[in-house]
Amino acid sequence: MLTLYSFGPAANSMKPLLTLYEKGLAFDGRRLNPATFDHHSDWFKAINPRGQVPALVDGGRVITESTVICEYLEDAHPTDVRLRPDDHTDRADMRVWTKWVDEYFCWCVSTIGWHRGVSHMARALSDEAFEAHLANIPIPEQRVKWRRAREGFPPDLLEEEMRKIGVSVRRLDDHLADHEWLAGGAYSLADICNFAIANGMQFGFAELVNAADTPHLLRWIEAINARPAVQRLFAEVPMERLGPPKD
Amino acid sequence: MLTLYSFGPAANSMKPLLTLYEKGLAFDGRRLNPATFDHHSDWFKAINPRGQVPALVDGGRVITESTVICEYLEDAHPTDVRLRPDDHTDRADMRVWTKWVDEYFCWCVSTIGWHRGVSHMARALSDEAFEAHLANIPIPEQRVKWRRAREGFPPDLLEEEMRKIGVSVRRLDDHLADHEWLAGGAYSLADICNFAIANGMQFGFAELVNAADTPHLLRWIEAINARPAVQRLFAEVPMERLGPPKD
Repeated sequence: MLTLYSFGPAANSMKPLLTLYEKGLAFDGRRLNPATFDHHSDWFKAINPRGQVPALVDGGRVITESTVICEYLEDAHPTDVRLRPDDHTDRADMRVWTKWVDEYFCWCVSTIGWHRGVSHMARALSDEAFEAHLANIPIPEQRVKWRRAREGFPPDLLEEEMRKIGVSVRRLDDHLADHEWLAGGAYSLADICNFAIANGMQFGFAELVNAADTPHLLRWIEAINARPAVQRLFAEVPMERLGPPKD
Repeated sequence: MLTLYSFGPAANSMKPLLTLYEKGLAFDGRRLNPATFDHHSDWFKAINPRGQVPALVDGGRVITESTVICEYLEDAHPTDVRLRPDDHTDRADMRVWTKWVDEYFCWCVSTIGWHRGVSHMARALSDEAFEAHLANIPIPEQRVKWRRAREGFPPDLLEEEMRKIGVSVRRLDDHLADHEWLAGGAYSLADICNFAIANGMQFGFAELVNAADTPHLLRWIEAINARPAVQRLFAEVPMERLGPPKD
């Protein structure tokens, strides 16, 4: 049995969740709560010492890193639903797109997401509770990011990240202007991994992702949202909300 | 016929060069000269619009991104020499290591490399020639990097990058302390992609990579340097030197 440890269906956790749903693979979904820092707990670090979700356990072995998990599912659990092109060059194109998400697109969106969401969580903690939490985080850069989220990210960094988000959505829209899908002429892991970051930007970044400026990106986001596997995923697995407290 | 456009055998260009040599695949090697900005020329941007080497051309189709090219060579040109584990989980482990190079290890080493080498090249240009050069670079972040290289990278950035290099070599040495190779118990693309960045650090970063502090990393660097394919590569394809002018 496959066991997936993840947050809700957004960002990196979305990638293997959606891949499992698209492939129709049965799995035991173990949901971690970012608000209680489950991913930095000792029990989870015994599974992934880096304290990061998602993590997949298959036959007693642990696979980490969202994009790697998606390719693993294609390698180890082939189904009729194929999420990687068979043509070698198309497959390389797919990997250029999944690599770009991991190296560029996800980071700028993540910083703004942390600024809007995680910072409220971090500020709700007492100094003592916050420091105790930091001590549990294994990756030094993650500790820096949490500290920045609590103190407030520098305005010039936020501005630079917004610039990069602008570059990213432009790149996607330009490509999707004459391609239905990102790679190889068919829905693939390239789409799943980019959708995991792009979905919701039509609301949260509506000044950048909208019918006037990025019609092709919007069409693609809507087409993926209309897929049965995506609708099932959202119906069965609730998203978490980490923003500021509502009135 | 395979055609590889690359710089000399170091950093990202080393990855497909060494993969081709290890696999014993014949290829037409087209060497670009970074000192004359060949990779930003119109003729090369007609091959890779992002103006980056390496790029592989195979049957008229272009494959870009060094790590993607390496996996492509395994997909499209299988040989008796296997550079990816057959076991699916081992293969996932391999990809965690190649992904880590692309997301973390290569960037910190690259900044210091630019500080030591490219900055001299950038300063040797007149203001006019430098601006004319910048105008040819398609990726905005690369333009920023060139400007910083010429003006001098901020000291706090250099210090942070050196800290990350320290984290990186510690991670490699710790893993290699009880593993002969990085993934799956055999020499693989995980080793090739990390070696592409780590090789030479025993000289250029001797305060971090040495027999006392990182004996396992040093053993692994020496073992790869002793491989026949590596020796052939270095004998046949000269490295470039971009450092300060010698007396």
